[in-house]
Amino acid sequence: MAYRLGDLAERVGAVLRGDALCEVDHVGQLQSALPGAVSFLANSRYLKHLANTRASAVIISPELADKSPVNALVSDNPYLCYARTADLLHPRPEFEAGAHPSAVISEDAVIAEGVWIGPCAVIEAGSRIDQGVFIGPGCVVGAGSRIGRDCRLVANVTLCARAKIGERVLIHPGAVIGSDGFGLANDRGKWIKVPQLGSVTIGNDVEIGANTTVDCGTINDTCIADGVKLDNQIQIAHNVEIGENTAIAGCAGIAGSTKVGKNCTLAGGVGLAGHLDIGDNVHFSGQSLVTRSFTEPGHYSGNLPAVTTGEWRKTIARIRRMNDMMQRLRVLEKRVEAIDARHKPD
Amino acid sequence: MAYRLGDLAERVGAVLRGDALCEVDHVGQLQSALPGAVSFLANSRYLKHLANTRASAVIISPELADKSPVNALVSDNPYLCYARTADLLHPRPEFEAGAHPSAVISEDAVIAEGVWIGPCAVIEAGSRIDQGVFIGPGCVVGAGSRIGRDCRLVANVTLCARAKIGERVLIHPGAVIGSDGFGLANDRGKWIKVPQLGSVTIGNDVEIGANTTVDCGTINDTCIADGVKLDNQIQIAHNVEIGENTAIAGCAGIAGSTKVGKNCTLAGGVGLAGHLDIGDNVHFSGQSLVTRSFTEPGHYSGNLPAVTTGEWRKTIARIRRMNDMMQRLRVLEKRVEAIDARHKPD
Amino acid sequence: MAYRLGDLAERVGAVLRGDALCEVDHVGQLQSALPGAVSFLANSRYLKHLANTRASAVIISPELADKSPVNALVSDNPYLCYARTADLLHPRPEFEAGAHPSAVISEDAVIAEGVWIGPCAVIEAGSRIDQGVFIGPGCVVGAGSRIGRDCRLVANVTLCARAKIGERVLIHPGAVIGSDGFGLANDRGKWIKVPQLGSVTIGNDVEIGANTTVDCGTINDTCIADGVKLDNQIQIAHNVEIGENTAIAGCAGIAGSTKVGKNCTLAGGVGLAGHLDIGDNVHFSGQSLVTRSFTEPGHYSGNLPAVTTGEWRKTIARIRRMNDMMQRLRVLEKRVEAIDARHKPD
Repeated sequence: MAYRLGDLAERVGAVLRGDALCEVDHVGQLQSALPGAVSFLANSRYLKHLANTRASAVIISPELADKSPVNALVSDNPYLCYARTADLLHPRPEFEAGAHPSAVISEDAVIAEGVWIGPCAVIEAGSRIDQGVFIGPGCVVGAGSRIGRDCRLVANVTLCARAKIGERVLIHPGAVIGSDGFGLANDRGKWIKVPQLGSVTIGNDVEIGANTTVDCGTINDTCIADGVKLDNQIQIAHNVEIGENTAIAGCAGIAGSTKVGKNCTLAGGVGLAGHLDIGDNVHFSGQSLVTRSFTEPGHYSGNLPAVTTGEWRKTIARIRRMNDMMQRLRVLEKRVEAIDARHKPD
Repeated sequence: MAYRLGDLAERVGAVLRGDALCEVDHVGQLQSALPGAVSFLANSRYLKHLANTRASAVIISPELADKSPVNALVSDNPYLCYARTADLLHPRPEFEAGAHPSAVISEDAVIAEGVWIGPCAVIEAGSRIDQGVFIGPGCVVGAGSRIGRDCRLVANVTLCARAKIGERVLIHPGAVIGSDGFGLANDRGKWIKVPQLGSVTIGNDVEIGANTTVDCGTINDTCIADGVKLDNQIQIAHNVEIGENTAIAGCAGIAGSTKVGKNCTLAGGVGLAGHLDIGDNVHFSGQSLVTRSFTEPGHYSGNLPAVTTGEWRKTIARIRRMNDMMQRLRVLEKRVEAIDARHKPD
Repeated sequence: MAYRLGDLAERVGAVLRGDALCEVDHVGQLQSALPGAVSFLANSRYLKHLANTRASAVIISPELADKSPVNALVSDNPYLCYARTADLLHPRPEFEAGAHPSAVISEDAVIAEGVWIGPCAVIEAGSRIDQGVFIGPGCVVGAGSRIGRDCRLVANVTLCARAKIGERVLIHPGAVIGSDGFGLANDRGKWIKVPQLGSVTIGNDVEIGANTTVDCGTINDTCIADGVKLDNQIQIAHNVEIGENTAIAGCAGIAGSTKVGKNCTLAGGVGLAGHLDIGDNVHFSGQSLVTRSFTEPGHYSGNLPAVTTGEWRKTIARIRRMNDMMQRLRVLEKRVEAIDARHKPD
């Protein structure tokens, strides 16, 4: 969709420096954009591409705006401003309401107006789907599920029985919501399944990445609060609770009954043990293993970044020699003690 | 389903202290249960909720039974007793036999009595499905597969060609059984695919979590023995063998041709390298990287739990300074040697 | 399919030592093969099984050929030679062209000759599928996708809108190509979605494992070059570029905008942070966490292999005591300094 820069600036809350009548109709990267495109500079790593950009306009911070060789949309938060701009210039295509003839919809499911149910999707008994929901091809909506307004299940998503999804939730392909938790009791060496009777409650404005799994609770529900963002390939175990606006990157895993607060971030591959209590505003760096509760806001880490394998072998050898060092240090302390005793400056 | 406590105690092998005629019909958590519910105390972390519970009965160990303010179902293994109780009070709904009209079933597949094949499920040629099996919506059962009695494929499960599944196996959504192993031969820099000609053999009473993947063998089969329990998002590579009653938590991965014994546990995120031999009763803690065989029973670990990022930076700096410490220690040893030589108490 | 060893040797580029007329028709493992089978020895770990093999022939290196008790197919690269042999003896079954009646194919999709579209597969509007492609059951091919000649989507694969797939690409069940990248801008504590407008471009001869996810680019495309091999459960984030013939093992994850060169290998569970530049011929060992760019060819590592939990606790304690050691070392240095000052051999 095309906008004049003056109108666009107003819509996205930026201050325009340049030609208000210049028309733009798509977004592009600084280094490859052509006229008609709006680009952005939100990471100083890409500053080197600014001088030669051919974009019609650049979204940029006040500090750097002077360096823009083209029209500037000045914003204190260029990345946010870019997100709004991209939304305006590239609106998601509308979809028609209805159901593909190959969709299988239980007679007692309640489907609101304005819902699309795609080919080979399956809507089981007792589920309720609110207005404006898009159910893509191959999705399964389990018995007794609830899906709030304007949700989008992209394709091949599985909601197990009784999942409760809020409004404007976006779920990517292959995600599984409400699978059984991993509950096992041991009977003289054999594992006996503990029935997983709870479900999953997901708030509003949540995004769930491709092939991410969220298990149902054992008795009560696994709970994902409003505004939580989950990347791909994440595992959320039974009875976990995640607070508002927490964002979790790919390949992270949270074990059973752990609570994560609001506004936390977990970087890629982070693993949280079970039954922990993580407070608000807690941040874990990539691949951290978390084995105890952290209730105070802060940044936490515990991993060793890769170096050359040669250097790494030395590091491991040093760690293994630490006991020996300690031993030699103690011996030396005693000898110095003895020397001092003999040679006191008395 | 409703039971009187006296009958329930008998069925689940507990000793009742209290009112044998009291009726219960569901399970609940200590802190939120209402009358009519049975709760349990299996983890001392939750002892604080016992005094105020409103449940009709609590499953509890003999040591703690005196502290129960309500009827007590006393058991040496409260969690196991709870699992049995939940099974009785919340039996899985029966399903009707038959096939949904949208299911696609090959004419030469052999389907026993009492099988349900759900909407948009696909049963390919030459497969055999035994009595009491439930195939949920969107599942694919590849050509020549065998599924034993009373298995349940929840939804959107993929069995590749020739997979052999035992009895009472439960497979959660998105799991893939029998995908090609990652076998590559190098031809002057280019990777040439090694045909993956084996299959997967899964024993009885196995559970396979959501989005878990089990590759087929290169020539013979990848083998998962009776009673193995796999959580979500696990990767089992080609030719792996896993022994009876081993339980593996989410996000773990086992590389090709590794053998894992019986009664092992792998915590979340554990990674086993290829061609290893892991004995019986071996236990790995979360995110451990296993690069050599461990044939002796025991507990093994190798990861650094997260601390504050500030403290962590110091730890890394210390590790990097170890060489310097060693150097200074050696210098000091020589100096003390020299001092002692000069000042011998001769 | 049956071959005489003389013909087979010629076809796979091996030198035959033995009976050119001996007929073989399948492959087998050294220790379990029966007459009629071709086996191979590519890993010295299995040399112990050579003397007793009952295979009709063994593919083997020149150095070991003398030790074969049966016909030998001598090759400098036995594993590669085995891959070719297995391909010849076990050709993939042909498939018929056409579409299963339950497949849902958009009227304006362009489907070439010789394509099979399986049951419950969905081909959306504007997609183009070239000659010889196999689309298995339950696959979704998103709007505007392109699939080159002779690709195979095994089952339940999801291609999101506008994905571009080269020729001879093999995609295993549950893989998701072109899901939204994890792009979030922060608006006073709330996460705002950054529209993901790019797509995914996949080259020729790529293999993508079960339940692996490849996100679309934010503006331009995520790019996977020719000959790249991805194992199962891998996460490739938006804007990532992977160079030719790079192979990545299971459970690895690559964060957004990172570039990986040609001929690299990432072992299982490796995690690459975002915005990195990894050169050609770079190799990371299992579970390495990579937080900076590595542009030089080489082997890199950073993880601590598991040991007994007892030993591991000591290691952690030692690391925590390092500050104390350093302190004691400094004290000792000063004391020796003082001793030397008092007792100079003047």
